[in-house]
Amino acid sequence: MKEKLQIKNTLNRERNTGDDRPQVTVLGLGPMGRALARAFLKAGHQTTVWNRSPGKAGELIEQGAILAESAAEAVTASPLTIVCVLDYDAVNAIVGPIDGALRGRTLVNLTADSPIRARQMAEWAAPHGIQYLDGAIMTPTTTIGQSSAFVLYSGSESVYQAHRETLSSIGGTSVHLGEDPGRAAAYDVSLLDIFWTSMSGYIHALTMAKAENITAKELLPFAQGISNILPDIMAGLAEQVDNGQYPGYDSNLFSAAAGMKHIIDTSQAHGIDTSVLIAANDIARRAIDAGHGTDGYAFLTEVIRK
Amino acid sequence: MKEKLQIKNTLNRERNTGDDRPQVTVLGLGPMGRALARAFLKAGHQTTVWNRSPGKAGELIEQGAILAESAAEAVTASPLTIVCVLDYDAVNAIVGPIDGALRGRTLVNLTADSPIRARQMAEWAAPHGIQYLDGAIMTPTTTIGQSSAFVLYSGSESVYQAHRETLSSIGGTSVHLGEDPGRAAAYDVSLLDIFWTSMSGYIHALTMAKAENITAKELLPFAQGISNILPDIMAGLAEQVDNGQYPGYDSNLFSAAAGMKHIIDTSQAHGIDTSVLIAANDIARRAIDAGHGTDGYAFLTEVIRK
Repeated sequence: MKEKLQIKNTLNRERNTGDDRPQVTVLGLGPMGRALARAFLKAGHQTTVWNRSPGKAGELIEQGAILAESAAEAVTASPLTIVCVLDYDAVNAIVGPIDGALRGRTLVNLTADSPIRARQMAEWAAPHGIQYLDGAIMTPTTTIGQSSAFVLYSGSESVYQAHRETLSSIGGTSVHLGEDPGRAAAYDVSLLDIFWTSMSGYIHALTMAKAENITAKELLPFAQGISNILPDIMAGLAEQVDNGQYPGYDSNLFSAAAGMKHIIDTSQAHGIDTSVLIAANDIARRAIDAGHGTDGYAFLTEVIRK
Repeated sequence: MKEKLQIKNTLNRERNTGDDRPQVTVLGLGPMGRALARAFLKAGHQTTVWNRSPGKAGELIEQGAILAESAAEAVTASPLTIVCVLDYDAVNAIVGPIDGALRGRTLVNLTADSPIRARQMAEWAAPHGIQYLDGAIMTPTTTIGQSSAFVLYSGSESVYQAHRETLSSIGGTSVHLGEDPGRAAAYDVSLLDIFWTSMSGYIHALTMAKAENITAKELLPFAQGISNILPDIMAGLAEQVDNGQYPGYDSNLFSAAAGMKHIIDTSQAHGIDTSVLIAANDIARRAIDAGHGTDGYAFLTEVIRK
């Protein structure tokens, strides 16, 4: 089996010689890296791949990918390299030692991390003559190569434009958010913040419902109903935050805290961990204690930033 | 002005004598109580109102409501009384002393509180010969009397059916969830849990975005996009929870914790309060430490219920 793959890999290499299909390299063959490589192959690219630990490239070689013997060999095979690994520590460990091989080429980093790390990465790339673009993939691996994929980019607009066509193989919608290389990651962490905090609330709600003999299936349509009203509410609060004014017409911090108290009481009566909601309620209580009980919920943006 | 209202109130009383329109009483004239009374008036009911502190009924009297001089007088004016006040302590303070006046009549409690309190209320009502129905209004005051209103009820099905037509004046959709009087409140607190935890995440995301020079308006369409993907994800997790199996195919606790770490790092770098997310992340870390890193996120329902 392993021998067969080696032969296939050699054939892929030979087939690519003198071939004028666009070239791309993918570093990192976790679930997302493999999905990216598959999408590039499917879109007709000469796709070179590499992973730090071996044994991940089999399926990709079958589909025509070339497995490079080293990260340096991988990046020199293409003008454009995509790296997508666990975090930026892993990125640094891979690309740090091959800055020479990357010189004059483009590195698009689709690894998720913080905006600070993204900016540090761009600062490392510039003096090494590496064109750097940072990106954040906002949708699951299953969307890659499909119309539902969604990717944010930031950093040099000209680098983005130069590789836009190849990057479009990732599928779906892509947005360039500006020259600040940290901007894609800043959007990413903000959106993940909404996602993971919401998930935490949903999991807690399902646990409390179960303690009240309500199955997840019974709660689901109502829970989905709550999700459906969020976009409008989000729009109203966004306007308040941008204006720095937080009128509590419909709903104020007193009623928010009263609502949270009922949830806390109920889950404590069932012995359920309430640490997340207690933290959220404490923030509201701080605002109320400071005399802001009749202000709207969005006033809390002023409370937590201090 | 006050005298004019008194004359109008007397006229309303006289007009209602011998009138065969259905009768309903509303106790509590906060924003929600007033919205309920308006909806009953609009639907052609003889509507009697009362509020503990005076001065809230002016607009309702203008619209034809009768302001009772006491809570006891208010409840004896109608076979059906709706109470909607701050919490069940406030309900008890109002209806506790007038159990005699309520005997043989129906009390529908639309005040929000915990399922435990709702069951205690039903237990108080039964020996006093009061027909009791508990309810939870899931939508804002502005929806009352409109098609977008949404109300949950639980407790005696026959009491619900007997007053269904009058209650339908509240508008929109109403659902009777079963004979357990705590069930509406149990759904209510579970859904509020999703709502308030999500709001907390959104407010935090807006604060972090602002620190990263992203306006709320810029983040909004992406934030709404996150809301739009939640219903499908909720459905998948609900199935896992009901089955008690939590495969981490697409996304596991390791990746959830890694994502949360990036958010925590970024907000701490900006000096933003991260207590909510730290609490959420600690729960995930506990599961990972117990060897569940490759399980799906819904495994946390097992962690927090202990």
